[in-house]
Amino acid sequence: MRLQRLGPVGSERPAVQVDGVAYDLAQLTNDFDGDFFAADGLRRVQDLLDAGTLKPISGAEHLRVGPPIARPGKIVCVGLNYRDHAAETGQSVPDEPMVFMKDPSTIVGPNDDLVIPRGSSKTDWEVELGVVVGRTTHYLESPEVAMEHVAGYVLVNDVSEREFQKERGGSIDKGKNCATFAPLGPWFLSRDEVADPQALRLTTTVNGEPRQDGTTADMIFGVAHIVWYLSQFMPLHPGELVLTGTPAGVALGMAEPAFLRAGDVVELTVDGLGATRQRCVPA
Amino acid sequence: MRLQRLGPVGSERPAVQVDGVAYDLAQLTNDFDGDFFAADGLRRVQDLLDAGTLKPISGAEHLRVGPPIARPGKIVCVGLNYRDHAAETGQSVPDEPMVFMKDPSTIVGPNDDLVIPRGSSKTDWEVELGVVVGRTTHYLESPEVAMEHVAGYVLVNDVSEREFQKERGGSIDKGKNCATFAPLGPWFLSRDEVADPQALRLTTTVNGEPRQDGTTADMIFGVAHIVWYLSQFMPLHPGELVLTGTPAGVALGMAEPAFLRAGDVVELTVDGLGATRQRCVPA
Repeated sequence: MRLQRLGPVGSERPAVQVDGVAYDLAQLTNDFDGDFFAADGLRRVQDLLDAGTLKPISGAEHLRVGPPIARPGKIVCVGLNYRDHAAETGQSVPDEPMVFMKDPSTIVGPNDDLVIPRGSSKTDWEVELGVVVGRTTHYLESPEVAMEHVAGYVLVNDVSEREFQKERGGSIDKGKNCATFAPLGPWFLSRDEVADPQALRLTTTVNGEPRQDGTTADMIFGVAHIVWYLSQFMPLHPGELVLTGTPAGVALGMAEPAFLRAGDVVELTVDGLGATRQRCVPA
Repeated sequence: MRLQRLGPVGSERPAVQVDGVAYDLAQLTNDFDGDFFAADGLRRVQDLLDAGTLKPISGAEHLRVGPPIARPGKIVCVGLNYRDHAAETGQSVPDEPMVFMKDPSTIVGPNDDLVIPRGSSKTDWEVELGVVVGRTTHYLESPEVAMEHVAGYVLVNDVSEREFQKERGGSIDKGKNCATFAPLGPWFLSRDEVADPQALRLTTTVNGEPRQDGTTADMIFGVAHIVWYLSQFMPLHPGELVLTGTPAGVALGMAEPAFLRAGDVVELTVDGLGATRQRCVPA
């Protein structure tokens, strides 16, 4: 099941997309938020689809595509989670997941402008598999039960300013939380439609030139392990978002890093999760 | 002006406290959230107080005291911001503020139980001055204009698990985001009632024994500098919370650290912001 939110910033309409047609879900929910996922929202959407009573949104193809879920309570990120990315940035493979938080207000639509921060010379891309939490998750007994807590997946660009992240003291958070630094979408794909989350290709191009071309098979810690692991430290709540790291091919890893500049166009794909395109603009 | 939220978890009522009496503000707002602060809520509360039409909440003294603001969009924290605390933990004084994020769902009421996480042997206290943002704050020109963006202040315990924070790899976030790790309150105090935010005493006791006794005069970076500094990296939104660091006297800094155990009672004060008391319980 593909969920989308369509319309202007702040007034997106929830929709389910079937065979390229966006059906209006306003009768079911105001938004794809924690309450929606906690109240078995995905099953209720399926019931409406089965009943055949949903109406297409007219002119949906002309609407802006928003982030496919409501603003989550938190975004938890796992860094250095691909062997080739750890290597390209000169860092050793972590013994256990490296965790940081990202401000939920960084989320924008998948094709919205990406704002290069003032004073930035090292804005970088990171294509990632995003995991949407389906139900409250705390102290899980094992990775084996973790997947039942996953509602589905979404494509994310975990945009990062490398100077702010690495050369301004302390933790990496200064480089992860600039405005617009989490383009999300184009759609949410429910877990049942992803046969193996550890077999998805992820790609990035910048101005049409290939940059990242990886696979989630190369993750150091897979989705089930990450969800189980995080739950030992903090509760995860319905509708919250977990980012699972990026493969090699970021600017930081290039012999001569070509960081993003105003005017550049970044395009990202993840198997099954669609394609996105962000134009870089100055702050 | 002192604002409080009174009542059971999840259904707290907004109130303004004058001379020990809590007046009901339900006619004005559902909550002290970003919309409230953005819509000049503090002035509107003052107008109602001046009109003399507010009704006391009957039995207010028997109600639980909740966190005094609604769950913020984000909590941004400054670490190692007191010289004596940096020294006691064996770390050098940072050249610029050290920044990390805390999950807003860690917030609990000021006297709610503090849950010692499973597997924790190093749960620690940190009394802090919390700053509530009054309006959208981005790329401020100077620290001099920063204070106009501050709505007021609140007492926070930035609870921290030191093993999770320091011995489990990567950033410190694993030790900062456990459930109940941000007791907040008892009240929000508007900025106009704090003559000098850099002249407030902060204290902590554990089971009645003195632990922290510092002053915000010893901050490395003051409130105005922090708000200005953060705004260069990320927007701050109305109702969001900034934590400004803790003075010396945490368990981590003791020759023989006495970390928190189930049954311990932590009591904290900040001048003008009240006193709180948390009982430690097992997860």
